[in-house]
Amino acid sequence: MPDPLPSWNDTAIKATIVEFVARVTGERSPGYIPPPERIATFDNDGTLWCEHPLQVQFFFGRSRLEQLVARDAGLKERQPFKAFLEHDLKTIHEFGKHGFLEVAAATHSGMTEEEFEQVARSWLATARHPTLGRPFTELTYQPQHELLNYLRANGFKTFIVSGGGLDLMRSFAEERYGVPREQVIGSSVKTRFEIRNGSAVLIKLADINSFDDREAKPQNIGLHIGRRPVLAFGNSDGDLAMLRYVKSGPGSRLALLLHHDDAAREFSYDRDFKVSPLAEALDKAEEYGLTTVSMKHDWATVFTA
Amino acid sequence: MPDPLPSWNDTAIKATIVEFVARVTGERSPGYIPPPERIATFDNDGTLWCEHPLQVQFFFGRSRLEQLVARDAGLKERQPFKAFLEHDLKTIHEFGKHGFLEVAAATHSGMTEEEFEQVARSWLATARHPTLGRPFTELTYQPQHELLNYLRANGFKTFIVSGGGLDLMRSFAEERYGVPREQVIGSSVKTRFEIRNGSAVLIKLADINSFDDREAKPQNIGLHIGRRPVLAFGNSDGDLAMLRYVKSGPGSRLALLLHHDDAAREFSYDRDFKVSPLAEALDKAEEYGLTTVSMKHDWATVFTA
Repeated sequence: MPDPLPSWNDTAIKATIVEFVARVTGERSPGYIPPPERIATFDNDGTLWCEHPLQVQFFFGRSRLEQLVARDAGLKERQPFKAFLEHDLKTIHEFGKHGFLEVAAATHSGMTEEEFEQVARSWLATARHPTLGRPFTELTYQPQHELLNYLRANGFKTFIVSGGGLDLMRSFAEERYGVPREQVIGSSVKTRFEIRNGSAVLIKLADINSFDDREAKPQNIGLHIGRRPVLAFGNSDGDLAMLRYVKSGPGSRLALLLHHDDAAREFSYDRDFKVSPLAEALDKAEEYGLTTVSMKHDWATVFTA
Repeated sequence: MPDPLPSWNDTAIKATIVEFVARVTGERSPGYIPPPERIATFDNDGTLWCEHPLQVQFFFGRSRLEQLVARDAGLKERQPFKAFLEHDLKTIHEFGKHGFLEVAAATHSGMTEEEFEQVARSWLATARHPTLGRPFTELTYQPQHELLNYLRANGFKTFIVSGGGLDLMRSFAEERYGVPREQVIGSSVKTRFEIRNGSAVLIKLADINSFDDREAKPQNIGLHIGRRPVLAFGNSDGDLAMLRYVKSGPGSRLALLLHHDDAAREFSYDRDFKVSPLAEALDKAEEYGLTTVSMKHDWATVFTA
């Protein structure tokens, strides 16, 4: 049988993953988990694709703001818009990921779902990473594509549970990750149901419905999935509640934490990465039973070709 | 090939359903819909199981209240609890389905998800319909089981979208309807993430998160599924927004409305059924392109054996 994880080096981490999958799928295994319970949840930013120097949601929001400011110059004077337009990193960091969501909410309010989908697809088709120069959707991690496929081939249902905007992720997750729209959980805005010209539509509002970070991740898993995942993969303190939720279930559980320690091939950052630090999860990984993955040591390849 | 819908009489309605499925699945059909887009949403109360004389959620809430009132006699003096305990139908009707949710929220707050699951399963295992004398989970409709199976055999993903309590439905939907927990959308309460004795749990709160009725149905479809369904089935004005949302999409769409007109085999009710009337949807069915199903004429069998 060919290696299902060729972009993972033959380290203890790869062995842990392969043994876990064998344990939960072997019908006579004491750790057997029936297929309906094989739920795996993945963070997106920094876990499935690159989030440095800032999450993709930031670049999307800024691009939208630049278009809108032409019509409404007043935006330039209000925060967090001002900081985005001026690329004022200090203020952007102070607002954190929540600021990205506020910008997304403000810049897309009044759109139908279908209109938003068009805007998101058009933007993703042309936007490029500021230093790596490639489209963001190419800056996904090859080892994670292999892991998603490997899990699905073993009867897992794979979900994304991310702080990123729900509908932005849905506009590419199916095509790119093989994760259907209904298996994407993310930050969301409230909507209004309306009959427009005889047709029923959902209109995006500027009010935030859920900021899917930290404790909200397990809460949204409860709401959307209704089962405790048996595997979760994250890369920041924003994923810690989800990882602990997974580890607290009975039976076999695997909680993985990606450490970006690879300045040569990607970026090296953790506790000083202001918008999404990795500090508590790294310090407590052993105590909480998390398996830390080193990008530098455990991955043979980083980005998809 | 054996008839996939033997409990449906050979009427125009059955022909409409079979033709719709052939149209959207035939690869050369002009109405072809690729499998990922084949989303079907079903209401539960009155669409998949019996909701008369009151929705099952009412009986569950009252049973919980009866247990709690032994410890907290003050509940007897507060509405809507008082009405539930005294079976004061007039007041119960005034509170409507939302009252059921308030009672559910109040009576289950402080429980973990796992504790709630046990309570719900135990109750469903012994509770019986007040006049039909059978367990509620046996009062599901045989034609709908066949329709769910038929749709799934044709590449549809089936979801429940109901005003009933999300976690109550999840406790039986997978076993009973073949609808996995993550494909159930319903009314929900907020939860709190907490570390209890070193273990991460979600605690149910008394605050309502979503009352999944009327406009909230398409809104929750947007949040949980992120695609417009191509088929929906409901039975009351509470389903009208969902049915119109489905019909407003492009291409082939089928919106079905069950009319309870069968006093001999089940119950006959519509606009006078206070907690969940069927009036506007019935009056506007033709204008909105809804297909009205008559329990009496279109169903050969009503309940599962």
